This record gives sequence, C-alpha cells and structure tokens, in this order.
Amino acid sequence: MMPPCDAFDRPREACGVVGLRTRENRDDPTAKLAFFSLYALQHRGQESAGIATHDGQLVRLHRGMGLVSQVFSESDLQPMTGHLAVGHVRYSTTGDSALVNAQPTHVQTLHGPLLVAHNGNLTNASALRQLLMARGTGMVGTSDTEVITQFLSTPPEGSTLSRPCWEERLIALSQRAEGAYSLVVLAGTDLYAMRDPLGLRPLCLGRLRDAEGHDIGWIAASESSALLTVGATFEREVGPGEIVRLDREGPVVVQGPMVSDAQAALCVFEYVYFARPDSVLEGQSVQRARRRMGQQLAAEAAADADLVFGVPDSSLPTAMAYAEALGLPYREGLIKNRYIQRTFIQPSPDMRKNQVRLKFNALRDNLEGKRVVMVDDSIVRGTTMGPLVRLVREAGGAREVHVRIAAPPIRHPCFMGVDLSDYEQLIAHRMDVEGIRRHVGADSLAFLSVEGLHSAVNTRETHAVACGHCDACFTGNYPIPLREQAAIPGTFRAAGA
Amino acid sequence: MMPPCDAFDRPREACGVVGLRTRENRDDPTAKLAFFSLYALQHRGQESAGIATHDGQLVRLHRGMGLVSQVFSESDLQPMTGHLAVGHVRYSTTGDSALVNAQPTHVQTLHGPLLVAHNGNLTNASALRQLLMARGTGMVGTSDTEVITQFLSTPPEGSTLSRPCWEERLIALSQRAEGAYSLVVLAGTDLYAMRDPLGLRPLCLGRLRDAEGHDIGWIAASESSALLTVGATFEREVGPGEIVRLDREGPVVVQGPMVSDAQAALCVFEYVYFARPDSVLEGQSVQRARRRMGQQLAAEAAADADLVFGVPDSSLPTAMAYAEALGLPYREGLIKNRYIQRTFIQPSPDMRKNQVRLKFNALRDNLEGKRVVMVDDSIVRGTTMGPLVRLVREAGGAREVHVRIAAPPIRHPCFMGVDLSDYEQLIAHRMDVEGIRRHVGADSLAFLSVEGLHSAVNTRETHAVACGHCDACFTGNYPIPLREQAAIPGTFRAAGA
Amino acid sequence: MMPPCDAFDRPREACGVVGLRTRENRDDPTAKLAFFSLYALQHRGQESAGIATHDGQLVRLHRGMGLVSQVFSESDLQPMTGHLAVGHVRYSTTGDSALVNAQPTHVQTLHGPLLVAHNGNLTNASALRQLLMARGTGMVGTSDTEVITQFLSTPPEGSTLSRPCWEERLIALSQRAEGAYSLVVLAGTDLYAMRDPLGLRPLCLGRLRDAEGHDIGWIAASESSALLTVGATFEREVGPGEIVRLDREGPVVVQGPMVSDAQAALCVFEYVYFARPDSVLEGQSVQRARRRMGQQLAAEAAADADLVFGVPDSSLPTAMAYAEALGLPYREGLIKNRYIQRTFIQPSPDMRKNQVRLKFNALRDNLEGKRVVMVDDSIVRGTTMGPLVRLVREAGGAREVHVRIAAPPIRHPCFMGVDLSDYEQLIAHRMDVEGIRRHVGADSLAFLSVEGLHSAVNTRETHAVACGHCDACFTGNYPIPLREQAAIPGTFRAAGA
Amino acid sequence: MMPPCDAFDRPREACGVVGLRTRENRDDPTAKLAFFSLYALQHRGQESAGIATHDGQLVRLHRGMGLVSQVFSESDLQPMTGHLAVGHVRYSTTGDSALVNAQPTHVQTLHGPLLVAHNGNLTNASALRQLLMARGTGMVGTSDTEVITQFLSTPPEGSTLSRPCWEERLIALSQRAEGAYSLVVLAGTDLYAMRDPLGLRPLCLGRLRDAEGHDIGWIAASESSALLTVGATFEREVGPGEIVRLDREGPVVVQGPMVSDAQAALCVFEYVYFARPDSVLEGQSVQRARRRMGQQLAAEAAADADLVFGVPDSSLPTAMAYAEALGLPYREGLIKNRYIQRTFIQPSPDMRKNQVRLKFNALRDNLEGKRVVMVDDSIVRGTTMGPLVRLVREAGGAREVHVRIAAPPIRHPCFMGVDLSDYEQLIAHRMDVEGIRRHVGADSLAFLSVEGLHSAVNTRETHAVACGHCDACFTGNYPIPLREQAAIPGTFRAAGA
Repeated sequence: MMPPCDAFDRPREACGVVGLRTRENRDDPTAKLAFFSLYALQHRGQESAGIATHDGQLVRLHRGMGLVSQVFSESDLQPMTGHLAVGHVRYSTTGDSALVNAQPTHVQTLHGPLLVAHNGNLTNASALRQLLMARGTGMVGTSDTEVITQFLSTPPEGSTLSRPCWEERLIALSQRAEGAYSLVVLAGTDLYAMRDPLGLRPLCLGRLRDAEGHDIGWIAASESSALLTVGATFEREVGPGEIVRLDREGPVVVQGPMVSDAQAALCVFEYVYFARPDSVLEGQSVQRARRRMGQQLAAEAAADADLVFGVPDSSLPTAMAYAEALGLPYREGLIKNRYIQRTFIQPSPDMRKNQVRLKFNALRDNLEGKRVVMVDDSIVRGTTMGPLVRLVREAGGAREVHVRIAAPPIRHPCFMGVDLSDYEQLIAHRMDVEGIRRHVGADSLAFLSVEGLHSAVNTRETHAVACGHCDACFTGNYPIPLREQAAIPGTFRAAGA
Repeated sequence: MMPPCDAFDRPREACGVVGLRTRENRDDPTAKLAFFSLYALQHRGQESAGIATHDGQLVRLHRGMGLVSQVFSESDLQPMTGHLAVGHVRYSTTGDSALVNAQPTHVQTLHGPLLVAHNGNLTNASALRQLLMARGTGMVGTSDTEVITQFLSTPPEGSTLSRPCWEERLIALSQRAEGAYSLVVLAGTDLYAMRDPLGLRPLCLGRLRDAEGHDIGWIAASESSALLTVGATFEREVGPGEIVRLDREGPVVVQGPMVSDAQAALCVFEYVYFARPDSVLEGQSVQRARRRMGQQLAAEAAADADLVFGVPDSSLPTAMAYAEALGLPYREGLIKNRYIQRTFIQPSPDMRKNQVRLKFNALRDNLEGKRVVMVDDSIVRGTTMGPLVRLVREAGGAREVHVRIAAPPIRHPCFMGVDLSDYEQLIAHRMDVEGIRRHVGADSLAFLSVEGLHSAVNTRETHAVACGHCDACFTGNYPIPLREQAAIPGTFRAAGA
Repeated sequence: MMPPCDAFDRPREACGVVGLRTRENRDDPTAKLAFFSLYALQHRGQESAGIATHDGQLVRLHRGMGLVSQVFSESDLQPMTGHLAVGHVRYSTTGDSALVNAQPTHVQTLHGPLLVAHNGNLTNASALRQLLMARGTGMVGTSDTEVITQFLSTPPEGSTLSRPCWEERLIALSQRAEGAYSLVVLAGTDLYAMRDPLGLRPLCLGRLRDAEGHDIGWIAASESSALLTVGATFEREVGPGEIVRLDREGPVVVQGPMVSDAQAALCVFEYVYFARPDSVLEGQSVQRARRRMGQQLAAEAAADADLVFGVPDSSLPTAMAYAEALGLPYREGLIKNRYIQRTFIQPSPDMRKNQVRLKFNALRDNLEGKRVVMVDDSIVRGTTMGPLVRLVREAGGAREVHVRIAAPPIRHPCFMGVDLSDYEQLIAHRMDVEGIRRHVGADSLAFLSVEGLHSAVNTRETHAVACGHCDACFTGNYPIPLREQAAIPGTFRAAGA
Repeated sequence: MMPPCDAFDRPREACGVVGLRTRENRDDPTAKLAFFSLYALQHRGQESAGIATHDGQLVRLHRGMGLVSQVFSESDLQPMTGHLAVGHVRYSTTGDSALVNAQPTHVQTLHGPLLVAHNGNLTNASALRQLLMARGTGMVGTSDTEVITQFLSTPPEGSTLSRPCWEERLIALSQRAEGAYSLVVLAGTDLYAMRDPLGLRPLCLGRLRDAEGHDIGWIAASESSALLTVGATFEREVGPGEIVRLDREGPVVVQGPMVSDAQAALCVFEYVYFARPDSVLEGQSVQRARRRMGQQLAAEAAADADLVFGVPDSSLPTAMAYAEALGLPYREGLIKNRYIQRTFIQPSPDMRKNQVRLKFNALRDNLEGKRVVMVDDSIVRGTTMGPLVRLVREAGGAREVHVRIAAPPIRHPCFMGVDLSDYEQLIAHRMDVEGIRRHVGADSLAFLSVEGLHSAVNTRETHAVACGHCDACFTGNYPIPLREQAAIPGTFRAAGA
C-alpha cells in the first residue's frame, strides 16, 4: 500500500481530540461543530474517527474507520443531539488498528456515562493494565485509552462510592499515569480537558461564537487551527498537568499547572512537522517558528548555490526563510501531485525503483544546470531523501544538490506517542551526517543544531522566552523514566471485529 | 422495513452458540466448521454473527452485522487458525443492535483471554451490572453477555489471584446469575459449555468426525441440527445447571445437573416454533413432537371441513398430522414466496392493506368453495392471522375458514430471552378466544390446551416421559423470580459504533 | 461458491419481466408496484434487477447486481416517478454477468426512448448481431436483449423515418427473431407485451386495482403470481406470437396469436420446476398440474414402500399426490435449512464429500428402518441425487430408497434460454435409467414418461385439453431450427464495468 | 455537498486520457502503467475512472465512479492482461454523471473491438447524434463520446465493408466533428491518438522506458506530467488535427497537422489553471508560464503594499513572481487544510456564512496591520473571493487587501468542454471590474489583460513565439461556429444505472 499524503518517511502523530459544550437548546447542532473541528484536525490522524454527544439524558456515539468525511454522513450526525460533544481522530500507535480501539471510548459507570478522547501514549500502560485486570476488569482492546477509561471508572481508594468524585479520579490519574496524555473527558454531564504533567502534547481552549459573534459555548481542541474552522476564538492553552472543567460559564481550574513553562516539555516536533502552520503554540504561530528555523539554518549552514526550494508542503516556509536570509532566489523545484491519495495498487517492479515520482516531479525549467539547495523538515528512516536527490539531479538536471534539514538528526525512538520506528530503522542512529550524505547522494548535507532548534522556537520578535520542550528523539534525554515497552502478547483481532 | 422470512407475528429467538475443539495440527480449519455450524443455526438469529479462534497463542476474532454468509468471506476466515473456536449468531433481545454488542465477547484477563457466547437472558442482569460497576468496571455495551464476561473476569471472593480458577468462577456464575443462559466459554485455553440451572435454552454435545468417520474433536451447539451439518454425531444434551469442560479426550463434568429432568424448564416454544424440525431435544426430533401436537389438536378441536392446510413452513407437519388424525385431505392452501427476503422498501398505501400478499398467495384451485382448516404455530400480536384469513377467503375463495393453533394462547411476556412483546401487544392478553376469532374473522378458532401441549411434548411412541418445561408465556408461571425489568437509561449507541 | 437456494442440480431459468401502466397523476408510485412484482418473480432470476419508469417526459432507470431487495432502496425508488414502468430480474444465459447486461435496456431513438425487458433466448442472435454491426452499430454488450433493442431502433425497410411505426418494428421482430422471447417494450410512451411465435416462455396480463378494488391500470408479467402480490387480478395470457399494446383503457391487440394452442410450445419445465406453484398457466394452477404429475407417476411407477416424501420445496405437492394415489403415508423425510443463502465460503475437504448436508438433513425419526420413496422434480447432471440417497440411507437409517422423478430423463440441452448444461454434463445423455440408478445408489429409480407428463399437464378435472409444449430437453424435438451456437469471441468485461 | 479540493469557484476541466502500447510478452503489466498515469492525471477529473486492456484476443474493461484509487484494487487490475491499454478520468461536462457514461467506451464492430477515451466537447454532438439515430442506432447514454464511438463504428460512405478502414473513419471524424476532442482510440489492435483541428485540448506522446532506461513501448497522454510518473520520456505533442498511429516501432503519422501553430487554439486556461505546473505545453513548463503571468501582472497592475501572498495552491508561483518583480516580500497569508476532502455534511447555518474557513485559515502573524496583495488564478462566479477578502481582513487583521488576478475577467461560457457556468452566473458578465471590487470588498482589484496573458504564454526566455490560443471565455471570440446547445430532453438516468 502506498502511504497517504505526506507520510513518506515522516514521523506519524497519534491523535487529535476535541470537546465542546454549547448553550443548551440551541438549534445548531453541536455534533456538526465537532465534525468540522475534527475535519480541521484530520492531519493528526487518518485511521479512524469518532464523535459522541450527550444531551444530559442519552449519549450518542458514532465511530468508524477512515477519514472524518468517510465515517460521517448527514444521517449519522442528524440523530446526534446534545449540547456536549467529544471527538477524536486517530493514528494508531499503541493498540492495533481495529474499530474496537476507535475513540472516544464510552463506558457506563455507577455515576453515569464516561467518555474519553486521548492524544498521546502512556509509558506505564502495561503496569496500569495489570492493575486493572488484577482488580477483575477484563480488558476489551489493546489501547491505553481503555486503560485510562477503566482507571477513571473506579473512585480512588478512600473515596466513598456514594458520590461521583470525578475530579479526584482525574487528579489520581495525573499522579499515576506516566507519559503523554492530552485528554478530553466527559464524565456524567461534566466536560474536562487535561494535559499530562509535562504538557507533551498540545491542547487549547476557545470560545465558540455564532455568525453574529455572540458567545455560544466553549471548545477544547488539540490545535488552535480547529477553533478557527468552527468560528471559535482562541482563549488559552491548557497548562502542563492542568485539569480544567468546561462549565456553562467558562473554564474552571480543577488542578493548576504542575510545572512552570520552563520545566514543561511540549514535543518540539509539533513545531517541526505535526501542527498545522496556522496553529498557535506557546503564543506564536507554527508558521512563524518554521520561518525562524529556516533563518537559523541559514545562519548555521549556508550553502553556495543558485537557488533554494523546499520539499512540499510543510517545509515551504522554512525554505523561503532560508533563501531570504541568504539572499538566494526561491524557486519551485519539486511539484507534488495535488490529488495524491491512498492507493492499494502496488507499483510494478520498474516503477518501484522510482516510487518517489508518484508523488513528486522535478521542475527541469527551474533546476537545469543549477546548484540547488533542497530544504526538508526531517529525515527519519532516510528512504525518501535519496530518491528525491536523484530525481532533482536526473529529471531536474541540477548540477549540485545541497540538502538542508530544518531539524536535528533523529537518533532515538519516541515512547510518548509518535511513531518514529525503532532504533535500527533510524538512519541517524546508524550513520553520522557524512554517512547519511553519501547514502542520499547529496553534494552537501546539514541538519539544524539542537540548540538552533530550541533558539528558533523560543525566540520572539523582540525577545527570547524560556519554554521547555521534549527533544528526546534528537538527544535521548527522555523527560520521564521508561519502564516498559508496549507489547501485549496473546491478543490479535481480525479486521472488522 | 418488511420483516425477514418467518418473522411475521412470531416470537423471536435470541441466539445460537457453538464451541469447538479439534485435534491440534489438523489441516482442516476449525474456523470453517464453526462457520458452517453457525450457518445451520442461522434461524436462531440473523442480526449479527461472530467467530473467535484460539491456537493457544493468539485469539482471532471476527464479528459483523448481518447473516453469517454476509459477515464472513474466505479472506476473513483464512487467517483464523487455531484448534479452538467459539461462534455466535444473534437476534438482539437485551442490548441494542450495535456491533458493540456482537458476540462472542472477548476480554483479556490476568489469566489469559476470555471469550463468551451466550443464548438467553439474565433476569438479574441489572443487579449484576451494578455490582460490577460498583467494583469499578466501566461497562462498554448494554448486553447481559458483557455482564457475564466481566463477572467471569474476577475470581470469586476467597480465591487467590495466583491461579486462574476458571471453574470456580463458572460455578459462582451458576449460583449468582438468574434467568436463561446457555453458554460457550473459552477461558485461557479451556473450552466450557454450561446451561442455566433450569435448562431454559437448549445446548448439546457432539463428536466431530472427518469424512472417513475418524474422531477429530468435540463440539457444543445450541441445536443438534448444527452437528449433522458439519459431520458431527450427537452425543448428549448438557443438563440443567451442568458445566462441562471439553477436553482433548472428551467432555469432563465440572458440575453436574442441578435439577432432575422433571424439575427442568426447557422453553416449550423450542418445540412449538424455534428449533429446526430436524433437531433432537430430550431424545426426540422436534418434527415428531410437532406431529403429536397436530394429533392432540385434532383430538381437542376437530373441525367439520373439506380439507386441511398449514401456514408454511413451520406448521406443515402439525397440519399434516392434524389432517391425518381426522381423516381429512391435506392440500396446499397457501404458497410462500420462496425468495422472500428482508427489504427496506415500504409498500405503497394500497399494498399495505394486503401486506400479507407479499409473502403468501392462496391457491384458489384447491380452496375455492371449500370449508378449510388452516393450522398455524402460534398467535402473538394477532396482526398476521386476520389478513391470512381474508386472503384465504377472498383470493382463495374458501367458503369457511377454521383456524387451529398448535399452541395455547400467549398471555404473558417472556423475560428469559424470547421477544414476545409487552403485555399490551399480546392479543391473548387483551381478548378471549371468541374475541380473537372475531378479530381475525375466522369461522371457528381453537388453540391447543396447555395440558395437550405438555402431553404432546412428553409422549413418546410407547410411553410418556416427565420433562419439565417453561410454559410461562401461556400460564404466567415463571420458573424464576422476576426482580427487575431490562432498561438501562442514559445510553444509546448509534449504528456502526 | 455454494449455489443459492434450490440451485443444486436444477435447470436455471432466464428472467422475469413486468410492464405497468397506471392512471396518470396517482399518488401511489408505479415504481413500487414494479418493485413488488419483481420481488414476487425473484425465483426467475437472482443475478441482477432493474426498473425504468417514464412519466411522459423523462425516463428514470435504476439497475444493479443482486436481489431485488439489494438493488433498490427507498431513496432509489423515490425519484422514479411516472405512470409507466418496465422491470426485469435476470439469471444470465447468453451474455456474461456484467452490469452492462442488466435490464431493462434503454436507448434513445429518433422517435423517443426505447426500453426492453426480455425473458428467453434468441437462437439467431449472432446473425442478427452481425446484421446490426454491418449497418454500422457498435454493440456494447453481449446479450441478445441488446440485439432486440437495436433491431427495434431501426424502422423496417420501406418505412419512412418521419413516423415512429413501433408496431411495424415489433411485427418485423416477430418475423425475424428466432427462439424464445417474452418481451415488455416501452417505445415512446407506448407499452407493449409480446411473445415469440411459439409462446416458449410465459407472459400474462392483469388488471391493477387499488385497496378498494377500483381499476388503476394494467400490468403484464411473466407469471400470474406477480399479479396477486401487487393486488392485480389475472385477465388472460398473451398468446403465442401475439403483440398487445397496453393502453389507458386496456389491452389492444396489435398482432393476434400466430399459432393455435395445439401448435404452441410453452416450455413444459415451467410446469415441472420454474413457475411458482401458485401461478396459473393455460388456465390451471401449476400446483394442480404438479399434483397430477404425482398421480401419473403413481400410475406409471408404483413402489412397494412404507412411506413417501418429497425433496423440498418444489416437489412436495407431487410427492403428496403420489403418496395419496398409492395409499401410502406421506411423512417429511428431508428437512431443508430455512435460512440457506449464497455463501462464498468453500467447505473444508471433509465437508465437501457431504456437501448436501449443508442444505438438507434426514429425519431419522421418520425414516429409520423404513422402505421409503423419495420424489424429486428432475435430474440434470446427477450430482445431488447420489448424496441425497446416501443421506437418507445413512443419516436417516432408511432400509430401502426408491427414487421417483416427476419428469422424464433430460437428454438434450436447451437453446431457448434455460441453462441445462451441455450434452456431456447431462447424466441421462450418458447413461440409461439403470445406469443412473446405480450411479445414485437407489434401490429403484423411475422417471415420468414423456406421454405421462403431457397427459398430466393437459388433463383438467373433467377433460383433456390440447396445448402444445416444448419437450425438446426430453425428446430432442426442437420446435425451431437451430442454426448457431452462442459464442462471441474477442470480448470480456471485468466486473463492475 | 462541499466541493472537493480546489473546486471553489474554479473552472472545471473535462477529462484526462491515456493510451499505451508496450512490447508484447513483458511481465510488467501495462494496466499498472495505465493506472499510475491516470493517477497523475487525477486533477483533470475525479468523477469516474476506467481502463481497458487488449491482448490481441480479449478486451478487459473496468470502470467505476470515484477517484482512480477508489475505482481500482489489485484484484481489479490483476486479470487485465494485454500490451495495449486505454485509460480515462472524467469530470462530466456533456452527459450526466452515471456510470453508463464512464469511459473508455467499448463496442464490438464488424471489424473487432473499438474503444474510445475522449477529452473535450463536441459542439455539434446533437447533430451527429441525430444522424446516428436516423441510421437506426439507439443511443444508450448522453455523452458525446458515445457519438464518437458509434460514428467510428460505421465505415464512411464509399468504403466497402470488407476491410476495417479505421483510418478513413478517423479522418472522416476529423472532418465532421466540431469542437474539442483529444482522443485515444483502440480499433481492432491498432492504437491511435488524435486531436481536433484546432488542438483545443492538449495531448502528447512519450517513450516508455524500464528502470534501466530500455525502450519498452509508447504512451499518449493528456499531459506530460503523466509520462514522468510512469518513467516515460516526453517525445512531442500531437499537432492540431493530427492523427497518429502508435505502432510497435513508434508513432506513424496518419494525417498531419491541419493548421499551423499560429492558427491553433489550445485552451489558454490550461496555462492559467488546469494543467499541472510540471507539465510541458508548447515547449515550456506550465509553471514557467505562470511565473511570467505574475511578472506581467506586476507590470500591468503594481500595488503599493507591504507583502504579497497567493491563494494556495495553483497561484503560488504567479504570486511569488509578482512579489519578486515588484521587490515586495512574499509571505504565506492563507493556509489551506492539507487534508480537505469531499464531505457530504452540510455546515450548520452559522458556519455557512464563513464556509471558506473550512478550507483556509489566515495567518494573523504575517498579515496583522499590513497592506497585502492577494494573488489568485481567476474569478468565475465570484462566490469565494469575497469571503477570502473578509477572512484576510478579519481573521488575518490585514489593513488593506489588494486583489490581483492572473487572468482576464471571464465573461463568456465555454462550449468546448470546460464547465464555466452560464452567462448569468459569470460575475464578470454581470459587473465591471469596479463592481466586482465592491462585491468582493477589496481595496483594489486588477485582472491581467488579454494581451498580457498571450504575451506571458508566448514569451520564451529569449524571444516570443506565435502560438494561437483559444481565449473565448475572455473575449467571446469562439474559434468554431456554435450551432447547438447541449440539451437532450426525455432522458434521465438514476445513479447506479
């Protein structure tokens, strides 16, 4: 199977989550707002999608495999009434890809329905799973979201069962769960948004407004770009370790941030690749940060060349800024097939050798005889860069190809929910920069330095700020202790189950 | 939506279950035997189907909505290796019809996988569900099978967690669960078959043989007709309350029958309508019992008429025996469309008044000018019999129409897993026999007496036997105390979830 | 692939057709009447289905592969307005099974739309096809219905193009086309029904009535049973070679019957197997004729036995009449799985040897130790009868099995639209009766004589009538000269095209 | 239904065609090369796709509704053997969107199979259709491709039927057919490529090579970018009116170009919007021509502003060149949702007012307080530009918004196969530039002049060339007489037919 758009040798993100509370008795369905906010988060997961609504009486849940637009039809959404909604798009990391693992999860508890949408990965999921099974709960699927859901189904020790105490449970979770978890939780009729203590994955809050600009409720979402799509305005990010209840009147803090900004550890790859360029993280647009990465890359690794181009689409702003900083012309060097889509047709043996041509063409008009700089986001396994360099050289006719990467070499796997492959598959784990250069056949190759990346992300127009970020994939400095590897033997579910 | 074949005003059965253990390392896939045994049990449930296999290492599970033949393709079955299999066909009773409620259920426990296939209905499911939720387990679906599965996930109090103790758990279940439950359970690598203490739903054991007649393993199934389809020979029924482990060498009794045959309470409607005529219950074929119902009906309610016919298909043997007993000619009076199938097309207003004609035609050649006896199985809501009488009179030209029903009037709902509608919908709850006769427009109407039904079912060629049967729908004498009504508020799942 | 219901070793019929004209401006949609009349004709073809409607302005056409209930949803039928409708169910004979061959066909001509639904098979289709291609028409599919449609698109020589002259074209068709063709044709806004000169396939006319019994229009259909399903009353059959226009006021004869009843040649297999038992052919119900076949078979081939049973479903009346005529008890000997359906799962090797058990079980209760007569419709290739005899003997425990067939041996293929296999595959072409008896392992075997079949079909209660029938499959006396074999090289269409 | 990617207020193109002849007996399937070349032409039509192959004996055809990747699975392609292939992707113009109109068309003729794939629109299709119906051919669908196919099924007058004379037929077609038609025709075992006399739609030839660079055959395709995707090298364009036979040894000219380059009339919108930027037309890349449009636009309509951005994706090179020419910074102003896809969910009323936000976000970081130039390709109905301007102003915070369009105002519909809507819907037909400016709410608005567009397209690095182009949508100077409007009454086909 050919990978979908932009999945060639890229790290793969886990999930996107949303939670919405609108004013009750509005005609405009909350489920539609949930649908379109997931539509805007589609880049965070294309495997399955789901929405649950709650009108105070009944929970309605619809989940399916595929893109948001494939999973939902008008007739699926029409009966989903209710002023509360939770939504999810998923790219499987832990847990295989069966429908049984689609989110939001939904269970009945003694104190009403409980729904969970999760972005991230627990690093102690197996231990928690054992704990729950020891308690006597049979575990249906293999995802760590089921672990979170069943964990929240039990009041913490010492709590009496006579009252729901959802907030105690969420606080208990933030104490026991290790790893990355940005969560939207609907418990009874209360809607919560929370992030893990280090804030590894993003989560923000916005104010929903109607077409006339009147307040109609609140939304939590993985990225701020989802807010704009449904007419919401960005309010603030949820802090690391913070637990917020979204009430009718607005956010109520249940537990404040557990660490300062400088101790937080937002995944720096959100800046490099995952987040949409129009999303705002830590007070700046991702696109702006990417431009600064290009500027920093120019400062660190100038190239003597005739022109610069980026590998579409995500590295274009970086490449433009790189060119601008060096005073080099920016020209389009590679054209991406706009209609590329997931296909199950295997290329024939001849085509397999040049598979990159299914997605990209080189623009000979611009490249022929030139010394060119090709800027890209990152190199993971190193399988695409070599064919790209060859395409630029052969089909494009470039005289020299200088590759510049707007991130440091990826030398370590991620255990917090990003699919970066194993150590053996990471080319920068196996080779040094010169080795990679020879492997991809470039005339020169340079990566952005770790310090350069941090500096680009933390610089604002007028000053530098001090936000901590997780850079474990570059440095191996994991922000949390790793005690287990995800592997649950004895279980396999055939598709459709 | 037009109801499927034979669902016009008939009680609807819950489920069919199978469990198989074959010799390991056979080439012939056990999953295929499971498939074809479910194919033979399709009449017990057309809503969803599922099979799980286990090879000692991995469980493979495939479930889907629809008929067995729609749910499974060769490519679904092909990867389902393993010498252990559990299968299920479902007609929803408790629990709505979403895929999330399809069976077999599958959870991971501290002591390995646990799979459950269930035919029946717990009458204390809500109480058990509360118990499990109080323990802290969030309940995913609405079926009582999930209740059974989570109940079995916990060792009974006093058991240590260091060993699986599956059999103690099954015994605890047989003590705590009330209602009807014929179960096939795969726990770890052990396969169990068990029936509720009164044996309300059938379950039997057979010996699997290959084409040359060699033993290849064991099978448990809801009806003996499923055994013959896959080349197994009938061995015996599982007794009321009995728990049997199907080992490599054959059945091992874990807990013996809890009551005598005379105290048992097999649902008498299995004889009247549910079971295939070729199935063997309590030592006799269902078809033979149906013939005796016809004879008994003739003794109780002879009619002065020119000919007899049955409403196809299930009442034909009854009608033939009725005719033979009275020395009246048997002729086909109604022809059923052989290719009738579930359609979502609503008949037009004109056709709706004669909807019965979509399924049946009257044979004027045989009926014109005649005094006829029409024999049918049962009357539930009374919606079909009136149109049938009119069809026989108008399209068939019959002079007189005498209706004979091979069961007593249904005056009470079933709480043990048969969908008989509510009190208000049962015509025999609202009207006496004369009222029903006028309602359906028959010249005369008679039902089999409760005693006559018991006598027909318990008579053998040479003597009467004393098996107890549940006749609560006729008499209101429920064999178990009813403490709750199935209704779980706050929950609704949209299709596809 | 396992064959669908009743397709085990049975001749397979080609198609069912309907045409309807209702009063204009009725609310009740004509398309629904077409749908339910096809639903009643489903036994004549399960491969594809189609309906076209015409409101005088626009033709709406919907066709698809599969059963009528699978091809049409409410939303497919809803936009199909119009008081004229043509419908078709298809079992492919000539022409492969692609959607491109689904009917009704629809073309635009100089004089408006032309739609054709066809049951039968042209024996000179290739010659007519060459003629049309020589004229310059490219032929899209491989069916002879396209040949008929394009033939009707051209006015006959001598006609001026300035007027439609549809009736001259239909008369020209009845002079040039050879073979079997019962047609419903919608040309411009005129609806026609016509049969080939020998009347090989059935076609009848009925009066549509609403629920109050008022006339609402006219219907033509392959079998009278389709009329009753939609509330129409049988009016008369279309005669051999007759062409009828269904006007607002009723049928208008365009061309009278071309031969007398005695010279006609309705396929006698309609009586033996194809037609529904409740259909009326030549003034008698098919079920009545089948009973007379049983009586005749008793007269020709009595058996010394303890009981009689038929192979379900179609041979039951024959078997009952046979039993009655000989004073033998009729008992059910074989039970057919009521829910048998087309499956794509291949039985495992062990099961393949006893594949007949997937469809039938023997009732040991009734058969054990008995000398039994098993009555069936026909033997084509002889692949099912042997396993059935073995099933009755082994699983049923019968002491002697005497097989009686309610039709003569099939020794010749059909070229008029019935799929009877080639000469080599017909068991009665390769073996005499004694050879077949040994092959199927019966204690005795007898077929109905050709004369006996004709006598059974032509006898009425009080007298014999003289209708000619095609019996070529028994006698080789083809009623029309055979000049070509259907085979169109150079063409193959993948599914979905 | 939300329109798919890039279909917001854009002219819509008709189709993409390919034809391939490979060396016989290669292992590598030609069907796969056809698949991936269509995959590269997906932007030219997303409604249906089809491929036919021919191995000299059998034609295999597979067509379906949807994207290439949705229509074909491995199991669809696997049986499609043969060294000849014809493929098509379709955006319906004439002819409704039913499967019956999917291409390639396929008919049997007296001289073998005939397959046609067509890009364009006949302006005298109705007249030719009448001619064919008068000849007696019933027309199945509503597309002009069926007209072409049936036209080619008849030898021209004077030809004897004893030989195929395909080339005489193609020449006759080029004399009788008016309008736009780039065709790939497979007739018997000969493969042809031809363009209409004015060359309105593109078509080019390439040499297929394997991974080692060896010749393996020939390909004709709508755009050169499709060649590169399958490893072919661009050879030359097919000339206006030219007919080429693709033999084993290479192209053989059947009929030379009918006009000079200066008299030709390639649709200039191929440069503006349709063609992929990496395609080569008339010896230059489309991307290069787009850059010159930007330069020309800068020369004609400079803006006093702080920065420039383009509306993604197709106008980016134009916008960059515009910025460069004026020495203004280029910044990203709008971000397009990378995963936007066709959805059937209707936005809620509130969202409908800002529907453009589903596709685009404004980058406030870059735009706030700035005077910006927004460059776009074209304005058709004017429905998207207003909301975009508002988005840039409100969400982006831009102080001034100056709109520059890289094409002249579209004042006239296209009758040659581009869906530009009717006169009434074209905003530039109803309003002058100042009216449009007020309508879209821009601070200034300028379009490229017609002369400027021609100059941009015809300028090369060193000199201007003289190629004629159709600019009728801007000028109303239609290159061919228009005698009919496409409208075929009395015909409608429901989906699925």
